[in-house]
Order: sequence, then structure tokens, then C-alpha cells
Amino acid sequence: MQIIITGGAGFLGRRLAQALLNSSLSFDTLELVDIVPPAPVDDVRVTCRQADLSEEGAVNDLITADTGLIFHLAAVVSSHAEKDFDLGWKVNLDLTRQLLEACRHRSPGCRFVFASSLAVYGGRLPEVVTDTTAVMPRSSYGSQKAAGELLVNDYSRKGFADGRVLRLPTVCVRPGRPNQAASSFVSGIIREPIQGEPAVCPVSPDLLLWLSSPDTIVENILKAATLDAAAFGDWRTVNLPGIGVTVAQMLDSLERVAGREARERVTFRYDAAIDAIVSSWPGALDNRRALEMGFRVDGPFDGFITQFMSQNQL
Amino acid sequence: MQIIITGGAGFLGRRLAQALLNSSLSFDTLELVDIVPPAPVDDVRVTCRQADLSEEGAVNDLITADTGLIFHLAAVVSSHAEKDFDLGWKVNLDLTRQLLEACRHRSPGCRFVFASSLAVYGGRLPEVVTDTTAVMPRSSYGSQKAAGELLVNDYSRKGFADGRVLRLPTVCVRPGRPNQAASSFVSGIIREPIQGEPAVCPVSPDLLLWLSSPDTIVENILKAATLDAAAFGDWRTVNLPGIGVTVAQMLDSLERVAGREARERVTFRYDAAIDAIVSSWPGALDNRRALEMGFRVDGPFDGFITQFMSQNQL
Repeated sequence: MQIIITGGAGFLGRRLAQALLNSSLSFDTLELVDIVPPAPVDDVRVTCRQADLSEEGAVNDLITADTGLIFHLAAVVSSHAEKDFDLGWKVNLDLTRQLLEACRHRSPGCRFVFASSLAVYGGRLPEVVTDTTAVMPRSSYGSQKAAGELLVNDYSRKGFADGRVLRLPTVCVRPGRPNQAASSFVSGIIREPIQGEPAVCPVSPDLLLWLSSPDTIVENILKAATLDAAAFGDWRTVNLPGIGVTVAQMLDSLERVAGREARERVTFRYDAAIDAIVSSWPGALDNRRALEMGFRVDGPFDGFITQFMSQNQL
Repeated sequence: MQIIITGGAGFLGRRLAQALLNSSLSFDTLELVDIVPPAPVDDVRVTCRQADLSEEGAVNDLITADTGLIFHLAAVVSSHAEKDFDLGWKVNLDLTRQLLEACRHRSPGCRFVFASSLAVYGGRLPEVVTDTTAVMPRSSYGSQKAAGELLVNDYSRKGFADGRVLRLPTVCVRPGRPNQAASSFVSGIIREPIQGEPAVCPVSPDLLLWLSSPDTIVENILKAATLDAAAFGDWRTVNLPGIGVTVAQMLDSLERVAGREARERVTFRYDAAIDAIVSSWPGALDNRRALEMGFRVDGPFDGFITQFMSQNQL
């Protein structure tokens, strides 16, 4: 049985690959595919492929009758999709559909874990968002993910794929460099100061964010792949658990864990474009369904910072 | 200024065309386009075009800088989309997107009225569905319409089109012959008995349906085109008003209006495939937002039958 991770060169893709290799899950090969070359992994089961999957026919080279599980993490992230409308719809919707079509025709019923996002929400939201709150996205990224969710659900209902749609909270702390996600600053205002660098926060300190740590996200993505389809009931979309933290609370944590000088490296410079996207996302969701399904939630935010520091020898 | 109606040969398309020609709306040309040839209309402003718009490039021949308003009614209906998965996604999603793209590039900001459906709803629903109830469709048709709604909203947010998404209740009484809509029987159990023909009801008499009459639907579609964009607030999707009636109540009306012998022409023969689709739709929605926006709602169901009889000289 082959497992595929799209976006396999990305931060979550690499972490997920490692978790799969360390897990008790039985498989023959794990293929990491990305538009940039995935870094080699020292395990005979792993193959790496550099490919632009959105190119005509590319997914048909990838998915075979042996493919039993796909983690579809590849995406054009939020600010990027807002700037490049065509690329966003092409990758975030069309590629998802091409992958589902390839499953349908080459490996029907293949498990298909789709990384969606709380960016599907927007507009007037109830105080606490639940799995049955309507999605009214205020970004192209959110619209594309929401449309992708509908595809995965319909392909699953038809038995063409065995889909699991996970709405990811904002992941914090991501290592590495800033990216084109509107939420890039959420990790930046912790990661940079800890490493002695300045960071700019483009939103109000009062903004409530909905977060998950990398360890928890990776564990929950893996969990989604191993759950019985029946655990999802009759709708394959689930809001993964998160915790609500304001920017000010994050900075209080930063000061507690890494000292006052770290906190003082963060300055505020309002960016209307980023704020419009990020403040349209909910900051409070009801975790109950996800927890009942066996997904895990993080503890307080201080632990997000210590997790990052310990994993990066800081 | 040119107005286009896709699905212009269909029942609603023809009725809408007549309503436009009779209205005070100012326009130069009205183009009816459909995959079957639209019947000629005796008005110099009207042109008819037979075209499969889902064919490569077809929409680019249709939409020009002069196009100011499009009513996109063309669709593969519910049971048809459930049987022909590929055709459903191709027409109900891809064609919608191609039309929006043509607006964006040839007539940016063009008004775009999209006929969606209460079929976007499904699964566990609250007692009364509102505009903020999550859509979890239980049919490919509903999934395709829901994805189309997301497109229209995102193109509108970007200013590429000025979209208005109308979720239509089931329309009753449609004249003519049965079609491939799962809800075809809803009109059939009234239309056929009135004309002395037998009709089969494939669902339980207790099933609650959400209905609008043709006169009301056409008036509301026209209303949507003339409303200021601001009337929609920050989300372009609205559930058009309807009334909730059970099959048994419809048959009671039939007996009151057309006599006992009419009612006795209806027999029940359960069809699981039709019931699965139609019973996944809500039977009670909150009309308040739509009524506040100026849309109209029908009176009791007896009036649906007299409207049909008077318009068909019965």
C-alpha cells in the first residue's frame, strides 16, 4: 500500500511523513510530492517527487491502484490566493478535484485526507462557531477550501473516495521563514523574537486567534487517516480542536517563557489587507465533536512556545 | 445594454423573459440561450441562440462588453446530476465558473443572478433553516450548486461580477411534462390529475415540502436583478421565500379545488432514490431576511393550483 503526501516538502508535510514512519501504520511506500523538491528522508519506504501537480495529467502519474491513502496538504496559502486569484482556484480547487478524479478511476475508495481551514468561515459569526455554522468565506482561499470540502464530501458519498476533511486552526509556532499566509505573523511574533530578531504584528493586540501546535496538528491529521469512516457520521468535515488566544495573551506568554526583551522585539504596524483576512476568521469554536471523535487539543499557549523552543534547540 | 438568460428555453427562462419584456426595466437586447432551441418570442429586442455553453469557448461568444445582466438558470437537475456525475459537475459548477470568468474579463461588474436551490441543505437540520444554517448537501446537485454559490460570492467580493444567489424553493405547479428533477412529482401530483391523468407519488404523504409558485418565483428573480447590491449586505446568497406544505396537504388542496376524482388519480409508490434526495431538503425555512429585502411569499397552497389552472385554461 502506498501513501502520498502532497505538499510533502512543506513544514506539515515533512512532520507528517516523520510521524507516519514512526507510527504502527503498515504501508510499503510513502511518496512525498511537492512543487519544490522534498528533502530526502533516510527510510527505504520514502520516495520524493518534484512535480507541479496542477499540470495536465500530472496526478495520473502519481496515483495508482496501490495508492491507499492520500494526505492532500498542497495549497496556495491565503494572502497568495488573494493576490493571485487564478492560481488559487487552480490549485486549491482544481487540483483537489483532479486528485479525487484520479482516486475515483485508479483507486476507488482511497482514503483522502483534505487539509481545509477555519478560513472557510467569515462574516457575522455566532459567539462560538460549531461544525454546523454556515461558511461565508471572506477570502478566495476560504472560498476555494470550502468548495473543495463539498467535492470531497460528494466523492465520499458516492464511494469514489473515502474523504476526511479537516479544518485546521492556525498552526503556531511554525519554524522557518515567513510565508504568504495572511496568518504568517502568528508564528512570526513568537519565532523571530525568541531568536533575537524583530517582528511586526499587523493586527490589533485584541484579535482573538484560534490555534493549534504543530505536534497536535500532526497527531490529529494522522488520527483522521486511521479513524473508521463511520466516526465522521454522515458529514466528512470536522473542525480540528484549537484554543483561543489573543495576540496580547500570546505576547504575555512570550514574556513569561522567553523574557521581556523577547516581547519588546515585537512592534505593531497595522496592515489592512492582512487584518481583513485574519479578523474574518473565528476565534472561538466548539471542540466537542472533534474531541468525541478522539482528536486532541493543546493546553495553554505557553506550551506552544516551549514546544517550539525544545524542537529547535533554543 | 444586453440581458442574457441561460436555460432560456426552460419553463422559468421563458416566463422570466416575458416578465422582463413586460417590465419597466430598460435594455436593448434580451438573448435567450439554451441547449435546446428557445421558442421564438415576438419582440424585436429578443434573440434566441441554441448552444451548448459547456463547450470550449462557447461563453466567450455570448458575453460582451454590452452584457449588463445575466440570469444563469441553466442546470442539470437533481436526479439527472445524481445519475450523471460528470455532466452535473461540468454544467452546474464549471459552466457557472466559465460564465463568471467571461463577466470578469469582458464585462466586469456585470450583474449575475444565479439560480441555486434549497438542495444545498441536507443532513441534520434545525427545525427552521435560516440563511446561516450550514449547507451539507446530500446530492451531487446540491453540492454543485453550493460550490457555485461560493464562486459567485467570491467573484462578487472581488468586483469581477455583481452576483445575486437565489436559493429557489421547489417550484409548483410546473406546466408541461415530468423532468429529471427529483422533485418532478411535486408538480406532477397536481398537474396530471387536474388534466385527467394518473400520477404517482414516490414519497410519504407526510413529507414536508418547501414551495413557491411560478408567479412568485419569477417576480422574485426579477426583484433580485433590480435590488441594489447593498441590499444583500455582505453575503450574496439568499433563501427565497416559500411555504411549507405536506404532500397530504397538497392533495387536500387538490380535492378542494379540483374535486375528489382528481385526488383519486394519485397513487403512492415509494421510490427510495427520489425519497433520499427530496427528503434531505428542508421543509421549513425562515423567510424573514428575504421578506425584509422585499421578496414576496405565496399565500396558501390552494392558490398554487388556481394559478396553474387559470394560466392553462383549465
